[in-house]
Amino acid sequence: MSADSQLLNELFDFLDQVMPLSEEDRSIVASLSIFREVKKGGFLLREGERGKESYFVVRGCVRSYVEVEGEEKTTDFFLEMDTINPTTIVSGKASLENIVALEDSLVLISTPETEEAAYQLWPRFERLGRLLTERMLLKNRINFSEFKVLSPEKRYLQLVEKRPELVQRVPQKMLASYLGITPQSLSRLRSRLASKNKLKA
Amino acid sequence: MSADSQLLNELFDFLDQVMPLSEEDRSIVASLSIFREVKKGGFLLREGERGKESYFVVRGCVRSYVEVEGEEKTTDFFLEMDTINPTTIVSGKASLENIVALEDSLVLISTPETEEAAYQLWPRFERLGRLLTERMLLKNRINFSEFKVLSPEKRYLQLVEKRPELVQRVPQKMLASYLGITPQSLSRLRSRLASKNKLKA
Repeated sequence: MSADSQLLNELFDFLDQVMPLSEEDRSIVASLSIFREVKKGGFLLREGERGKESYFVVRGCVRSYVEVEGEEKTTDFFLEMDTINPTTIVSGKASLENIVALEDSLVLISTPETEEAAYQLWPRFERLGRLLTERMLLKNRINFSEFKVLSPEKRYLQLVEKRPELVQRVPQKMLASYLGITPQSLSRLRSRLASKNKLKA
Repeated sequence: MSADSQLLNELFDFLDQVMPLSEEDRSIVASLSIFREVKKGGFLLREGERGKESYFVVRGCVRSYVEVEGEEKTTDFFLEMDTINPTTIVSGKASLENIVALEDSLVLISTPETEEAAYQLWPRFERLGRLLTERMLLKNRINFSEFKVLSPEKRYLQLVEKRPELVQRVPQKMLASYLGITPQSLSRLRSRLASKNKLKA
Protein backbone atom coordinates (compact mmCIF):
# COMPACT_ATOMS: atom_id res chain seq x y z
CA MET A 1 0.00 0.00 0.00
CA SER A 2 1.38 3.43 -0.90
CA ALA A 3 1.64 6.17 1.71
CA ASP A 4 -1.13 8.07 -0.07
CA SER A 5 -3.54 5.18 -0.13
CA GLN A 6 -2.89 4.59 3.56
CA LEU A 7 -3.78 8.20 4.30
CA LEU A 8 -6.92 7.86 2.21
CA ASN A 9 -7.90 4.71 4.10
CA GLU A 10 -7.56 6.55 7.40
CA LEU A 11 -9.74 9.30 5.96
CA PHE A 12 -12.36 6.77 4.81
CA ASP A 13 -12.40 5.13 8.25
CA PHE A 14 -13.10 8.49 9.80
CA LEU A 15 -15.80 9.43 7.27
CA ASP A 16 -17.46 6.01 7.53
CA GLN A 17 -18.25 6.76 11.17
CA VAL A 18 -20.12 9.86 10.05
CA MET A 19 -21.82 8.41 6.95
CA PRO A 20 -21.11 4.97 5.45
CA LEU A 21 -19.45 5.48 2.06
CA SER A 22 -20.04 3.26 -0.99
CA GLU A 23 -17.13 2.26 -3.24
CA GLU A 24 -18.22 4.97 -5.65
CA ASP A 25 -18.32 7.55 -2.85
CA ARG A 26 -14.78 6.57 -1.90
CA SER A 27 -13.44 7.07 -5.38
CA ILE A 28 -15.15 10.48 -5.55
CA VAL A 29 -13.59 11.50 -2.22
CA ALA A 30 -10.21 10.26 -3.47
CA SER A 31 -10.52 12.24 -6.71
CA LEU A 32 -11.41 15.41 -4.77
CA SER A 33 -8.69 15.09 -2.14
CA ILE A 34 -5.93 17.64 -2.44
CA PHE A 35 -3.16 17.19 0.11
CA ARG A 36 -0.72 19.90 1.17
CA GLU A 37 2.36 19.59 3.30
CA VAL A 38 3.10 22.42 5.69
CA LYS A 39 6.34 22.57 7.63
CA LYS A 40 6.50 23.35 11.35
CA GLY A 41 6.04 27.10 11.71
CA GLY A 42 4.40 27.44 8.29
CA PHE A 43 1.20 29.50 8.07
CA LEU A 44 -2.05 28.31 6.51
CA LEU A 45 -3.65 31.70 7.13
CA ARG A 46 -2.48 35.04 8.49
CA GLU A 47 -4.35 37.83 10.24
CA GLY A 48 -5.72 40.29 7.68
CA GLU A 49 -5.96 37.77 4.83
CA ARG A 50 -9.21 36.75 3.22
CA GLY A 51 -8.90 32.97 3.13
CA LYS A 52 -10.77 30.67 0.80
CA GLU A 53 -9.51 27.34 2.08
CA SER A 54 -10.64 25.06 4.85
CA TYR A 55 -8.50 22.20 6.11
CA PHE A 56 -8.70 18.73 7.47
CA VAL A 57 -5.67 17.58 9.44
CA VAL A 58 -4.38 14.20 8.24
CA ARG A 59 -1.06 14.32 10.11
CA GLY A 60 0.45 16.78 12.52
CA CYS A 61 -0.72 19.59 14.76
CA VAL A 62 -2.00 23.04 13.86
CA ARG A 63 -2.75 26.02 16.11
CA SER A 64 -4.97 29.07 15.68
CA TYR A 65 -4.24 32.27 17.57
CA VAL A 66 -5.11 35.94 17.71
CA GLU A 67 -2.57 38.63 18.54
CA VAL A 68 -3.77 41.02 21.24
CA GLU A 69 -1.47 43.86 22.28
CA GLY A 70 1.58 41.96 21.12
CA GLU A 71 0.56 38.79 22.91
CA GLU A 72 -0.45 35.58 21.13
CA LYS A 73 -3.73 34.19 22.46
CA THR A 74 -4.24 30.60 21.38
CA THR A 75 -7.85 29.99 20.37
CA ASP A 76 -7.67 26.36 19.25
CA PHE A 77 -5.52 23.32 18.45
CA PHE A 78 -6.18 20.87 15.63
CA LEU A 79 -4.83 17.32 15.55
CA GLU A 80 -5.43 14.35 13.23
CA MET A 81 -9.02 14.14 11.93
CA ASP A 82 -9.84 17.66 13.12
CA THR A 83 -11.39 20.15 10.71
CA ILE A 84 -10.24 23.76 10.49
CA ASN A 85 -12.93 26.12 9.27
CA PRO A 86 -11.50 29.65 9.26
CA THR A 87 -14.25 32.16 10.01
CA THR A 88 -13.09 34.35 7.10
CA ILE A 89 -14.49 31.86 4.54
CA VAL A 90 -18.07 32.29 5.65
CA SER A 91 -17.87 35.87 6.92
CA GLY A 92 -15.93 37.13 3.87
CA LYS A 93 -14.11 39.53 6.22
CA ALA A 94 -10.35 39.76 6.77
CA SER A 95 -9.18 37.04 9.12
CA LEU A 96 -8.60 37.99 12.76
CA GLU A 97 -6.85 34.72 13.43
CA ASN A 98 -3.56 33.18 12.39
CA ILE A 99 -3.40 29.49 11.59
CA VAL A 100 0.04 27.93 11.87
CA ALA A 101 1.55 24.44 11.92
CA LEU A 102 3.04 23.43 15.29
CA GLU A 103 4.55 20.27 13.76
CA ASP A 104 5.34 19.21 10.20
CA SER A 105 1.80 18.55 9.04
CA LEU A 106 -0.24 17.18 6.17
CA VAL A 107 -3.67 18.68 5.51
CA LEU A 108 -6.48 18.13 3.06
CA ILE A 109 -7.69 21.31 1.39
CA SER A 110 -11.11 22.34 0.22
CA THR A 111 -12.67 25.60 -0.91
CA PRO A 112 -16.33 26.68 -1.08
CA GLU A 113 -16.05 26.38 -4.89
CA THR A 114 -14.78 22.79 -4.93
CA GLU A 115 -17.32 21.84 -2.28
CA GLU A 116 -20.14 23.49 -4.19
CA ALA A 117 -19.11 21.71 -7.40
CA ALA A 118 -19.09 18.39 -5.56
CA TYR A 119 -22.52 19.04 -4.04
CA GLN A 120 -23.93 19.87 -7.48
CA LEU A 121 -22.54 16.69 -8.99
CA TRP A 122 -23.27 14.41 -6.03
CA PRO A 123 -26.06 15.90 -3.92
CA ARG A 124 -25.78 13.01 -1.43
CA PHE A 125 -22.56 14.63 -0.19
CA GLU A 126 -24.69 17.45 1.24
CA ARG A 127 -25.57 14.89 3.89
CA LEU A 128 -21.94 14.20 4.72
CA GLY A 129 -21.31 17.96 4.86
CA ARG A 130 -24.28 18.49 7.17
CA LEU A 131 -23.31 15.64 9.50
CA LEU A 132 -19.67 16.76 9.72
CA THR A 133 -20.75 20.33 10.45
CA GLU A 134 -23.19 19.15 13.13
CA ARG A 135 -20.40 17.23 14.85
CA MET A 136 -18.17 20.27 14.82
CA LEU A 137 -20.94 22.48 16.14
CA LEU A 138 -21.60 20.05 18.99
CA LYS A 139 -17.92 19.90 19.93
CA ASN A 140 -17.66 23.66 19.76
CA ARG A 141 -20.76 24.26 21.90
CA ILE A 142 -19.56 21.82 24.56
CA ASN A 143 -16.07 23.34 24.61
CA PHE A 144 -17.44 26.88 24.86
CA SER A 145 -19.86 25.96 27.61
CA GLU A 146 -17.11 24.18 29.58
CA PHE A 147 -14.75 27.09 29.14
CA LYS A 148 -17.33 29.45 30.61
CA VAL A 149 -18.51 27.21 33.38
CA LEU A 150 -15.51 25.25 34.67
CA SER A 151 -12.66 26.39 36.88
CA PRO A 152 -9.19 26.41 35.23
CA GLU A 153 -8.30 23.23 37.13
CA LYS A 154 -11.39 21.39 35.85
CA ARG A 155 -10.79 22.75 32.36
CA TYR A 156 -7.32 21.27 32.42
CA LEU A 157 -8.56 17.91 33.73
CA GLN A 158 -11.23 17.79 30.99
CA LEU A 159 -8.55 18.46 28.39
CA VAL A 160 -6.32 15.70 29.75
CA GLU A 161 -9.27 13.32 29.62
CA LYS A 162 -10.62 14.31 26.20
CA ARG A 163 -7.45 15.14 24.30
CA PRO A 164 -4.57 13.52 26.18
CA GLU A 165 -2.17 13.72 23.19
CA LEU A 166 -2.63 17.48 23.07
CA VAL A 167 -1.19 17.95 26.54
CA GLN A 168 1.90 15.99 25.45
CA ARG A 169 2.43 17.58 22.05
CA VAL A 170 1.86 21.25 22.69
CA PRO A 171 4.19 23.76 24.43
CA GLN A 172 3.01 24.59 27.96
CA LYS A 173 2.88 28.31 27.23
CA MET A 174 0.39 27.80 24.41
CA LEU A 175 -1.59 25.31 26.43
CA ALA A 176 -1.91 27.87 29.24
CA SER A 177 -3.07 30.52 26.81
CA TYR A 178 -5.62 28.09 25.35
CA LEU A 179 -6.93 27.40 28.87
CA GLY A 180 -7.15 31.13 29.57
CA ILE A 181 -4.57 31.13 32.36
CA THR A 182 -0.93 32.20 32.78
CA PRO A 183 1.91 29.68 32.27
CA GLN A 184 2.74 30.11 35.99
CA SER A 185 -0.81 29.16 37.01
CA LEU A 186 -0.71 26.11 34.74
CA SER A 187 2.59 25.02 36.22
CA ARG A 188 1.29 25.45 39.82
CA LEU A 189 -1.91 23.61 38.87
CA ARG A 190 0.07 20.69 37.46
CA SER A 191 2.30 20.31 40.49
CA ARG A 192 -0.76 20.54 42.78
CA LEU A 193 -2.42 17.73 40.80
CA ALA A 194 0.81 15.69 40.77
CA SER A 195 1.18 15.83 44.56
CA LYS A 196 -2.53 14.95 44.98
CA ASN A 197 -1.95 11.86 42.85
CA LYS A 198 1.10 10.95 44.90
CA LEU A 199 -0.95 11.09 48.10
CA LYS A 200 -3.53 8.79 46.55
CA ALA A 201 -0.92 6.27 45.32
CA MET B 1 -53.36 37.42 7.35
CA SER B 2 -53.68 35.12 10.37
CA ALA B 3 -51.14 35.29 13.19
CA ASP B 4 -49.80 31.89 12.17
CA SER B 5 -49.28 32.79 8.53
CA GLN B 6 -47.49 35.96 9.60
CA LEU B 7 -45.13 33.88 11.74
CA LEU B 8 -44.57 31.53 8.83
CA ASN B 9 -43.78 34.44 6.54
CA GLU B 10 -41.16 35.70 8.97
CA LEU B 11 -39.70 32.21 9.04
CA PHE B 12 -39.65 32.07 5.22
CA ASP B 13 -37.92 35.47 5.03
CA PHE B 14 -35.23 34.17 7.34
CA LEU B 15 -34.78 30.87 5.49
CA ASP B 16 -34.76 32.61 2.08
CA GLN B 17 -31.54 34.36 3.12
CA VAL B 18 -29.96 30.98 3.72
CA MET B 19 -31.41 29.13 0.71
CA PRO B 20 -34.10 30.49 -1.63
CA LEU B 21 -37.26 28.41 -1.15
CA SER B 22 -39.68 27.47 -3.93
CA GLU B 23 -43.44 27.59 -3.33
CA GLU B 24 -43.37 23.83 -2.87
CA ASP B 25 -40.51 24.13 -0.34
CA ARG B 26 -42.56 26.66 1.61
CA SER B 27 -45.56 24.41 1.84
CA ILE B 28 -43.34 21.56 3.01
CA VAL B 29 -41.78 23.79 5.70
CA ALA B 30 -45.29 24.92 6.73
CA SER B 31 -46.53 21.32 6.97
CA LEU B 32 -43.52 20.37 9.14
CA SER B 33 -43.68 23.36 11.46
CA ILE B 34 -44.80 22.55 14.97
CA PHE B 35 -45.09 25.60 17.20
CA ARG B 36 -45.01 25.52 20.99
CA GLU B 37 -45.77 28.30 23.43
CA VAL B 38 -43.68 28.45 26.56
CA LYS B 39 -44.49 30.85 29.38
CA LYS B 40 -41.87 33.00 31.07
CA GLY B 41 -39.98 30.73 33.48
CA GLY B 42 -41.04 27.57 31.65
CA PHE B 43 -38.33 25.00 30.90
CA LEU B 44 -37.63 23.49 27.49
CA LEU B 45 -34.97 21.23 28.96
CA ARG B 46 -33.64 20.51 32.46
CA GLU B 47 -30.26 19.31 33.63
CA GLY B 48 -30.16 15.50 33.71
CA GLU B 49 -32.78 15.02 31.00
CA ARG B 50 -32.07 13.37 27.68
CA GLY B 51 -33.67 15.78 25.24
CA LYS B 52 -34.81 14.93 21.73
CA GLU B 53 -35.98 18.36 20.63
CA SER B 54 -34.20 21.29 19.09
CA TYR B 55 -35.81 24.72 18.86
CA PHE B 56 -36.03 27.76 16.71
CA VAL B 57 -37.14 30.94 18.48
CA VAL B 58 -39.98 32.69 16.65
CA ARG B 59 -40.92 35.10 19.46
CA GLY B 60 -39.42 35.77 22.85
CA CYS B 61 -36.17 35.13 24.65
CA VAL B 62 -34.69 31.90 25.96
CA ARG B 63 -31.65 31.33 28.18
CA SER B 64 -29.38 28.33 28.71
CA TYR B 65 -27.47 27.91 31.95
CA VAL B 66 -25.49 25.41 33.95
CA GLU B 67 -25.65 25.20 37.74
CA VAL B 68 -22.23 25.15 39.36
CA GLU B 69 -22.03 24.91 43.16
CA GLY B 70 -25.50 26.41 43.54
CA GLU B 71 -24.77 29.26 41.16
CA GLU B 72 -26.43 29.67 37.76
CA LYS B 73 -23.89 30.27 35.01
CA THR B 74 -25.54 31.60 31.86
CA THR B 75 -24.05 29.98 28.77
CA ASP B 76 -26.22 31.55 26.06
CA PHE B 77 -29.23 33.66 25.13
CA PHE B 78 -31.53 32.99 22.19
CA LEU B 79 -33.75 35.64 20.59
CA GLU B 80 -35.93 35.69 17.47
CA MET B 81 -34.50 33.61 14.58
CA ASP B 82 -31.92 31.94 16.84
CA THR B 83 -31.60 28.17 16.84
CA ILE B 84 -31.23 26.16 20.05
CA ASN B 85 -29.41 22.88 19.55
CA PRO B 86 -29.09 21.20 22.95
CA THR B 87 -25.88 19.15 23.08
CA THR B 88 -27.81 16.18 24.54
CA ILE B 89 -29.46 15.45 21.16
CA VAL B 90 -26.20 14.67 19.42
CA SER B 91 -24.22 13.39 22.41
CA GLY B 92 -27.07 11.18 23.68
CA LYS B 93 -25.86 11.97 27.23
CA ALA B 94 -27.90 13.54 30.03
CA SER B 95 -28.08 17.31 29.58
CA LEU B 96 -25.73 19.44 31.67
CA GLU B 97 -27.60 22.57 30.75
CA ASN B 98 -31.01 24.00 31.55
CA ILE B 99 -32.97 25.80 28.86
CA VAL B 100 -35.61 28.20 30.14
CA ALA B 101 -37.83 30.95 28.72
CA LEU B 102 -36.94 34.45 29.97
CA GLU B 103 -40.07 35.91 28.34
CA ASP B 104 -43.33 34.37 27.11
CA SER B 105 -41.99 32.72 23.97
CA LEU B 106 -43.02 30.85 20.86
CA VAL B 107 -40.67 28.24 19.44
CA LEU B 108 -40.62 25.87 16.49
CA ILE B 109 -39.79 22.29 17.45
CA SER B 110 -37.94 19.61 15.57
CA THR B 111 -36.48 16.23 16.47
CA PRO B 112 -33.80 14.12 14.76
CA GLU B 113 -36.61 11.76 13.67
CA THR B 114 -38.76 14.42 12.01
CA GLU B 115 -35.67 15.96 10.41
CA GLU B 116 -34.49 12.59 9.14
CA ALA B 117 -37.93 11.83 7.68
CA ALA B 118 -37.93 15.19 5.90
CA TYR B 119 -34.41 14.60 4.51
CA GLN B 120 -35.48 11.19 3.20
CA LEU B 121 -38.53 12.63 1.48
CA TRP B 122 -36.91 15.85 0.23
CA PRO B 123 -33.13 15.40 0.01
CA ARG B 124 -32.72 19.01 -1.11
CA PHE B 125 -33.42 20.02 2.49
CA GLU B 126 -30.07 18.49 3.44
CA ARG B 127 -28.65 21.61 1.85
CA LEU B 128 -30.74 23.92 4.02
CA GLY B 129 -29.73 21.90 7.08
CA ARG B 130 -26.06 22.11 6.13
CA LEU B 131 -26.16 25.86 5.46
CA LEU B 132 -28.02 26.61 8.70
CA THR B 133 -25.54 24.51 10.67
CA GLU B 134 -22.58 26.22 8.99
CA ARG B 135 -23.97 29.63 10.01
CA MET B 136 -24.38 28.48 13.58
CA LEU B 137 -20.90 27.04 13.66
CA LEU B 138 -19.45 30.30 12.35
CA LYS B 139 -21.32 32.37 14.95
CA ASN B 140 -20.26 29.99 17.68
CA ARG B 141 -16.58 30.00 16.65
CA ILE B 142 -16.47 33.80 16.51
CA ASN B 143 -18.20 34.12 19.89
CA PHE B 144 -15.87 31.60 21.51
CA SER B 145 -12.80 33.22 20.05
CA GLU B 146 -13.93 36.68 21.19
CA PHE B 147 -14.74 35.40 24.65
CA LYS B 148 -11.22 34.03 24.99
CA VAL B 149 -9.42 36.94 23.44
CA LEU B 150 -11.23 40.12 24.45
CA SER B 151 -11.24 41.96 27.77
CA PRO B 152 -14.61 42.05 29.61
CA GLU B 153 -15.09 45.67 28.52
CA LYS B 154 -14.55 44.82 24.85
CA ARG B 155 -16.77 41.76 25.18
CA TYR B 156 -19.55 43.98 26.48
CA LEU B 157 -19.06 46.52 23.69
CA GLN B 158 -19.18 43.76 21.07
CA LEU B 159 -22.41 42.49 22.56
CA VAL B 160 -23.96 45.98 22.52
CA GLU B 161 -22.97 46.29 18.87
CA LYS B 162 -23.98 42.83 17.69
CA ARG B 163 -27.02 42.14 19.83
CA PRO B 164 -28.26 45.49 21.16
CA GLU B 165 -31.75 44.16 22.04
CA LEU B 166 -30.19 41.56 24.29
CA VAL B 167 -28.67 44.19 26.56
CA GLN B 168 -32.14 45.75 26.93
CA ARG B 169 -34.15 42.60 27.41
CA VAL B 170 -32.03 40.53 29.77
CA PRO B 171 -31.53 41.01 33.56
CA GLN B 172 -28.12 42.50 34.35
CA LYS B 173 -27.18 39.64 36.65
CA MET B 174 -27.59 37.10 33.84
CA LEU B 175 -25.83 39.35 31.36
CA ALA B 176 -22.85 39.59 33.72
CA SER B 177 -22.74 35.82 34.11
CA TYR B 178 -22.90 35.42 30.31
CA LEU B 179 -19.95 37.83 29.98
CA GLY B 180 -18.02 35.91 32.62
CA ILE B 181 -17.87 38.77 35.13
CA THR B 182 -19.59 39.69 38.39
CA PRO B 183 -22.71 41.92 38.37
CA GLN B 184 -20.63 44.53 40.28
CA SER B 185 -17.98 44.57 37.56
CA LEU B 186 -20.64 44.94 34.87
CA SER B 187 -22.21 47.82 36.72
CA ARG B 188 -18.83 49.60 37.16
CA LEU B 189 -18.00 48.94 33.52
CA ARG B 190 -21.29 50.48 32.39
CA SER B 191 -20.88 53.64 34.44
CA ARG B 192 -17.28 53.99 33.23
CA LEU B 193 -18.50 53.77 29.63
CA ALA B 194 -21.37 56.17 30.33
CA SER B 195 -19.05 58.85 31.74
CA LYS B 196 -16.65 58.37 28.81
CA ASN B 197 -19.55 59.02 26.44
CA LYS B 198 -20.53 62.10 28.43
CA LEU B 199 -17.02 63.50 28.07
CA LYS B 200 -17.18 62.95 24.30
CA ALA B 201 -20.60 64.61 23.97
